[in-house]
Formats: sequence, C-alpha cells, structure tokens
Amino acid sequence: MANVNANDFIVTDKNIRLSERPTRIDLFDDKDDAKDTIKDNAKEIADLAHKLYAEAGRSVLIVLQGMDTSGKDGTTEALFHRTPPLNVNVASFKAPTKKEIAHDYLWRVHNVCPGAGQITVFNRSHYEDVLVVKVKNFVSAATIEQRYDQINDFERLLVENGTTILKFMLNISHETQGERLRERLVESHKLWKFNPGDLEDRALWPEFMDAYQTMLRRTSTHHAPWYVIPSDCRKTRGAIVSSIVRESLEKMDPQYPDPGFKPEDFEI
Amino acid sequence: MANVNANDFIVTDKNIRLSERPTRIDLFDDKDDAKDTIKDNAKEIADLAHKLYAEAGRSVLIVLQGMDTSGKDGTTEALFHRTPPLNVNVASFKAPTKKEIAHDYLWRVHNVCPGAGQITVFNRSHYEDVLVVKVKNFVSAATIEQRYDQINDFERLLVENGTTILKFMLNISHETQGERLRERLVESHKLWKFNPGDLEDRALWPEFMDAYQTMLRRTSTHHAPWYVIPSDCRKTRGAIVSSIVRESLEKMDPQYPDPGFKPEDFEI
Repeated sequence: MANVNANDFIVTDKNIRLSERPTRIDLFDDKDDAKDTIKDNAKEIADLAHKLYAEAGRSVLIVLQGMDTSGKDGTTEALFHRTPPLNVNVASFKAPTKKEIAHDYLWRVHNVCPGAGQITVFNRSHYEDVLVVKVKNFVSAATIEQRYDQINDFERLLVENGTTILKFMLNISHETQGERLRERLVESHKLWKFNPGDLEDRALWPEFMDAYQTMLRRTSTHHAPWYVIPSDCRKTRGAIVSSIVRESLEKMDPQYPDPGFKPEDFEI
Repeated sequence: MANVNANDFIVTDKNIRLSERPTRIDLFDDKDDAKDTIKDNAKEIADLAHKLYAEAGRSVLIVLQGMDTSGKDGTTEALFHRTPPLNVNVASFKAPTKKEIAHDYLWRVHNVCPGAGQITVFNRSHYEDVLVVKVKNFVSAATIEQRYDQINDFERLLVENGTTILKFMLNISHETQGERLRERLVESHKLWKFNPGDLEDRALWPEFMDAYQTMLRRTSTHHAPWYVIPSDCRKTRGAIVSSIVRESLEKMDPQYPDPGFKPEDFEI
C-alpha cells in the first residue's frame, strides 16, 4: 500500500496559495489500493479509539471543512465505519439558532467539544464564521479580522487541556463539484442531499476560495495545523485522511490506565 | 441462521417474575451462527440508519440497562460496529453532577434525547433513578413510587413526537457476573473496567433484582416495551438485541425524502 506522508498535505506556509494545491493526485496504483488503505486504517483506528476510551484522559477533535459535495460525510464514514459509537460522535453546524446567535460564535462550538476519552468530528465548524460569514458579509471585515486570532487562542486552550486537533480542508475543483451536484439530481438515493441553495455558494466559488486561502494562512498553527486534502477522488481522499488520523492516534499512543490497586487484593 | 422472535423476550405481563426469565438460552447451533447473525444485522442496521439520517424525521432511542458486566458496551458494539457515527451517538449516565441534581431527574435525560434522524443509545439511563437510587434509599419510597408513572408519561411524550423507544434489560446470572469480574482482574486489557465499587452493588444482588422486577412490571408499556435479554452468552445477547433493533428499523421503513422540487428544473 502507498505510504501517505502527512507533510505533503500540511499547511506551514503563511503565504500558501490554495490554487497551487492539487485537487487530485495519483498516490495509489488503483482504486483497490486506496480502498484497502481505508479498510486497514479503519480497523486500526477502531482499536486506537477503544484504547483512548479506556484511557479516559485525552481527546481528539477532527474538523472537516470543504465546499458542498467535498465529502464531509463520506470522510467521516471512511474514518469510523469500523468504530463503535461508544466514544465517537459527530457535531454538525448549521445556520445558528436565535439562542446561539445571542452568544459569541464559539459558544455553541465549545459546548460540543470532546471530553476525556472522546473523539468528536466537526462536520463544518467555527470556520464557517470566517468563510460563509465573510463571503456573504454577515459581519464587518474588522470583526472577521479579529476572529482568526480568537480561533487560534481558543484552539490553543483546547490543545493545552488535552485535545489533539486535526483540521482537514477537503479540496475539490469547481468542475468536480458540478459533476457531483449533477449526480445528486440524477441518482434517486442522492437527491435528498441536493439543496438548491448550494448553487448560490457555487456561484461565489472564487470568493470562497479566497476566504479558504486566508483561513489557511491565518489559522494553520503548530498546535492545530490544517491539512489540504486532494478530494476529487473519493477513495484517495478517504485514504489520505484516515492515514493522517491513524498516524496521529498512533503518536498519541493511548494506554489502558493503571487502576491504582492490586488485582490480588480482591476475591470474588 | 436462527430466527429471533422478539415476542419471546418482550415484557407484557404486569406480574412478570424476573427469576423465571432465562439468563442463557440455546438459540443458535453454535457461536459462529450467533456471530453471523450479528454481522448480518450490523450491516443491515447501517443501511437503515443511513436512510433514517436522510429522512431526517423520526428518531430512535435504545435504552440499555443491566448489572455491571452485563454487556452494555458490548451490545452497543454489536449493534453499531458497522454504522458510521453520522447520526448515532451514545449517552452514558454516571452519578449526577451538582447542577444536574439541582433539577428533576429527567432534565439531563431529556437534554440528550435523539433529534430528527438520530439514533441515541443510553448506556444506563433514567432507570437508574428507580434502580440504584431505590436500592440505596437515596430518595423516599413515595418518590420512587411516583417515578414509574412519570417515566411512562415522559416516554409517551417522546414516542408521540416521533421517537421509537426500545428498552433492553441485559439479564445475567450472579454466577456469570462473578466470572466476568474475575476476568477483569486477570486480563490486563480488561483491568481498567474493574471498579472496586461494583462489589458493593454485587453484594446487593437480590435487592437489585427486586428493583429490576418492579421496574419491568411498572414501565413496560405498549409505547415503550422492555425486552429481557438472556446475556450470559455475549454472542447470543448481541444476536438477539441486534435482531430486535433491525426488525424495528425495518418496520419503521425510513425513506429518502421527497425533495419538493423537480430535478429537471436545475441546470448545473
């Protein structure tokens, strides 16, 4: 199986140009190779997730961002289709409710961050507050400008308190999005995913790419880096993301905890 | 594969005697047969869960109750080890916090009930408030007495608003619990699950069985029935519960929703 090198996808360049990052790469010999990588990673992730659950100390936050059809649901599936939901959950962020909007934009996010032993996937995230909110001018430019540092500080708080943060920008081409939207219209079991409103965002593609680029430049930090994932091919996308998540969990090396007693002290 | 008949496990008798319900049955020819049933059900449950997610209308609440080592985690795994966490999550109930205890006992429970399209597993539940709370006399007998009807009313509220409730009492013998606790002390990867406090509950086994029996008599309703699952054999337990959950999802028959527009109206 092809070896995924996380460094090929991480963002460390403060002047990164998103247009220079590929939406498609030939990393695997064929689709089966990518598929096998996903399967293999999914089993390993399940084992590591169980140890993290037992350890009940640290936690993991996985942020998935990308344009419509970039594969946020599909990536979640690739990562965790073999992991029971004991300590894994998904938080989806839609347009904020009245109550949520009455608070600062990180309030609802903080509320669903993973606790000890937990893994949480953010399907969209607080980054919408510097993406769609920026593109559509829902708040002033000065407010957006403040948010990058606020987000970095917020994420440092989480990291310093035991959370590992992995952020993935699922990078697709305008052309591939067009294909996938057409697929949704044609295949009856995908039609429910089509939202006419998505076409409005599609029309603002350059503005969105610009907002993503600024987001990457300003919020890819040492403590919570962004990875830009070529996502025109679903299998390649799943294989890369699951390899990076697996490697991060392996580095965390979760352990069954010391119970703090001697087994031989008990007779049952 | 053996056919699981849900009616063999449901509680309809208001005078049920828990001691007459088996903790072990020979339902499958061998372990492989039970294992194949679990695998087959898990794949089917994954498909149905995905349709429920797409439908985004109704929801499912699965309540797991049982003595320590009865297999609440293991059952969750058997049910959902093939379902991605997109719309499935687990809520575990431990001793209430100060804030939770300042509210009625259903407050924290209501807060984590499944929304539209969601499946939530309760690993322990509001039933602890008529089990451990009763056995240890944390509240008065009169208060316990009120709770059965309060719980039935609360669950009817959920059901009438679109939630299907399935409640499983994982029925193990005192002897099997002893074996499993000893296992936890001997096998290093299970030691983290051993809690010396569990032995206190074990010493109160007859009192707990009595509280479970009253719970079954008073709260197995037409809208939210209890199933008593023979749980001395892990594979049989998983096979029976997953068969009942699968059948319930099949009866719900979730559908991809009508999008409310004509696909041909869009050109992309």
